[in-house]
Amino acid sequence: MAAELPTDDFDALLTDSQRASRALGVAPAPQRHAAILAIAEAIEAASDDILAANAADLERGRGTGLAEGMLDRLLLDRERIAGLAAAARQLAELPDPIGEVLRQRTLPNGLDLTEVRVPFGVIGVIYEARPNVTVDLACIALGSGNAVVLRGGSAAEQTNAVLVEAMQGAIEAAGLPRASVQTIDRFGRDGAGRLMRARGLVDLLVPRGSAALIERVVTESTVPVIETGAGVVHAFVDRAAQLPMALEIVLNAKTQRTSVCNALETVLVHRDIADTAVPALAEALQQAGVTVHADGPLPGAARTEPLGESGWSTEHLSMDVAIGVVDDLDAAIEHINRYGTHHTDTIVTEDADAAGTFLAQVDSAVVMHNASTRFTDGGEFGFGAEVGISTQKSHARGPMGLTELTSTKWIVRGTGQVRA
Amino acid sequence: MAAELPTDDFDALLTDSQRASRALGVAPAPQRHAAILAIAEAIEAASDDILAANAADLERGRGTGLAEGMLDRLLLDRERIAGLAAAARQLAELPDPIGEVLRQRTLPNGLDLTEVRVPFGVIGVIYEARPNVTVDLACIALGSGNAVVLRGGSAAEQTNAVLVEAMQGAIEAAGLPRASVQTIDRFGRDGAGRLMRARGLVDLLVPRGSAALIERVVTESTVPVIETGAGVVHAFVDRAAQLPMALEIVLNAKTQRTSVCNALETVLVHRDIADTAVPALAEALQQAGVTVHADGPLPGAARTEPLGESGWSTEHLSMDVAIGVVDDLDAAIEHINRYGTHHTDTIVTEDADAAGTFLAQVDSAVVMHNASTRFTDGGEFGFGAEVGISTQKSHARGPMGLTELTSTKWIVRGTGQVRA
Repeated sequence: MAAELPTDDFDALLTDSQRASRALGVAPAPQRHAAILAIAEAIEAASDDILAANAADLERGRGTGLAEGMLDRLLLDRERIAGLAAAARQLAELPDPIGEVLRQRTLPNGLDLTEVRVPFGVIGVIYEARPNVTVDLACIALGSGNAVVLRGGSAAEQTNAVLVEAMQGAIEAAGLPRASVQTIDRFGRDGAGRLMRARGLVDLLVPRGSAALIERVVTESTVPVIETGAGVVHAFVDRAAQLPMALEIVLNAKTQRTSVCNALETVLVHRDIADTAVPALAEALQQAGVTVHADGPLPGAARTEPLGESGWSTEHLSMDVAIGVVDDLDAAIEHINRYGTHHTDTIVTEDADAAGTFLAQVDSAVVMHNASTRFTDGGEFGFGAEVGISTQKSHARGPMGLTELTSTKWIVRGTGQVRA
Repeated sequence: MAAELPTDDFDALLTDSQRASRALGVAPAPQRHAAILAIAEAIEAASDDILAANAADLERGRGTGLAEGMLDRLLLDRERIAGLAAAARQLAELPDPIGEVLRQRTLPNGLDLTEVRVPFGVIGVIYEARPNVTVDLACIALGSGNAVVLRGGSAAEQTNAVLVEAMQGAIEAAGLPRASVQTIDRFGRDGAGRLMRARGLVDLLVPRGSAALIERVVTESTVPVIETGAGVVHAFVDRAAQLPMALEIVLNAKTQRTSVCNALETVLVHRDIADTAVPALAEALQQAGVTVHADGPLPGAARTEPLGESGWSTEHLSMDVAIGVVDDLDAAIEHINRYGTHHTDTIVTEDADAAGTFLAQVDSAVVMHNASTRFTDGGEFGFGAEVGISTQKSHARGPMGLTELTSTKWIVRGTGQVRA
């Protein structure tokens, strides 16, 4: 497929994105919000076409043996389409981040320096077979004044094509360039690689998906990347924990939804309370249908399976959890910083000092005290939708919403000043 | 040289940096500031050793035919050492960025979310033969709670070794780990490459130097990178410019110092005033010893040389400038966004609307109105020293000081909340 296209079609597409980004960069917020609302309308109006394309993708997926979980992620129905439109309308209500003044100072020579928030320009996103991401990302990009170039999973190709077409019509009707939202799915596998090497045309690249995808993008890309996703998430049950609260938080973090990055992988228990807490935790988890893993016998002889191949670094994404006993708070922090992915980690304790040490020394995007790790989420944080959850420290850390898709610019206003 | 070292020495060094960064991350600001002041003392006390090492580097440099400009950058004397110590003392006076609260919100369920500024952890810097950078970077890193791993140019290797040794002693005397500041110069050329691949041990990499160095780091690194430096810098003389102000700004931006990234490369002149402005600008520049380049005959038949091999994208770093005539403001903006490096660009005009359009649409780290581009500088901006000037949009844009070497972290405080 890609071979039939002249090689410069790809650059032409990105140049269109760049031109669109310049228009978006000066478009007032009401116009960008109107485009988001128009997208909500357009998606509802195109429901029949979207469902037909989605049915075709699903049938192809069943034919190629896609797993049930993947098919469920791929599936759109009328309720899910209504949900997408509702999320878009909610995003259009959020305050506009563009133009916000971050720092201001006047130098002794009278020069006025102002740092303001500006859009990035063109943002590339490489993601897997979830058509809802297509709409979320388009709306977040418009909300932050950016053009977006999407590379969705091939399993959702027909669905995404219809969604993008509908959204482009809505954007155009709102007086903004169609190229504000583009897909490179028609360039096939080659497209992702070219996007990674489009330094100068693409300002930021966000991979959203499997660890293998993220690894590839980080290694190959010459465009700045924000890593998202992988979550080896911990709960530390301190010796000063209230056991009922610990049980509730651990059960919620593990079982409320298992296929997500903020779900729990490992429970660490303070040795001083291990004899009572470990059996109670293990039993509650097992009763809820969770398989408990450990690297040796656990206090109270709870039935356990061995750790997986990756040991304490395993991201289960399933009804499996590892339980370990640690000597003290420092050992818990050491374990988390060593085996975790710097995503989300929580301490359960009534000891304010222990909580303070944990919150300060655990080196993760989100650190929690007496709360379920499942709260690490753009929606829960009040960001509307989210681009993903950044697990790196550069640019953005934690859930990424509108603000996280902005850059800054220094504006210097003078009256003829020169440097002595 | 590198071949004689066991391969895991390098990882051991980075592990020491990571351990030091954890100590720095919880060290109070007064202790970090005391370490910076101790560095100032130690450098002054070690002046004789530093000058001896520097003399050896200079002699080797002359032997290998280093250019005069490079030798001057490499040179330390008593005055420059005093300047380094003074800059360190100034940095120790700046407010501490760590712990600053950026966003705070309480969710309906009572969860308290606070986004705070935290250190990155371990920052790697690859730079060329300027020993002053060694001290600046060590002090900026301490001021922002980070450990730093330095790879200086081989031409300054002996000077840097003495500087790092003196600084490590000072840091240790202040009760912080020696490994807060380390050099990998002893690993030779291999060290830079390993630093670029040290994802998980190094949190951020800043290349500071030639375009070739930056290109290599951006292409090879799997650690997040901030691009610094290259500056194809423009002044646009609008039809509503005051000609005397335009002359003063252009002359200052071009000639006040030529070897720096914020020096001027290209003057664009509005066609409506080209017949008077171009000859006046060309004559003033030529009288100041500047060679004027153009892509064809200029109004008033000013004597010109052709553009360089890279045309309008040439970064001269010398007493050369290009002059071009553009049809209007839009053409000027288009030219700058196309040929510039998104560093610093200025408009000279009395027309507030034209200035507003220029400031909004020129896509650069620093955009100016009626001011010399030479003001884009961490020192001028009040940042104390600077790590470099970021020309990318991710994480930091423009001069990088203490704040730009920080990340953030979300702290979530609950009372047992779980997700419904």
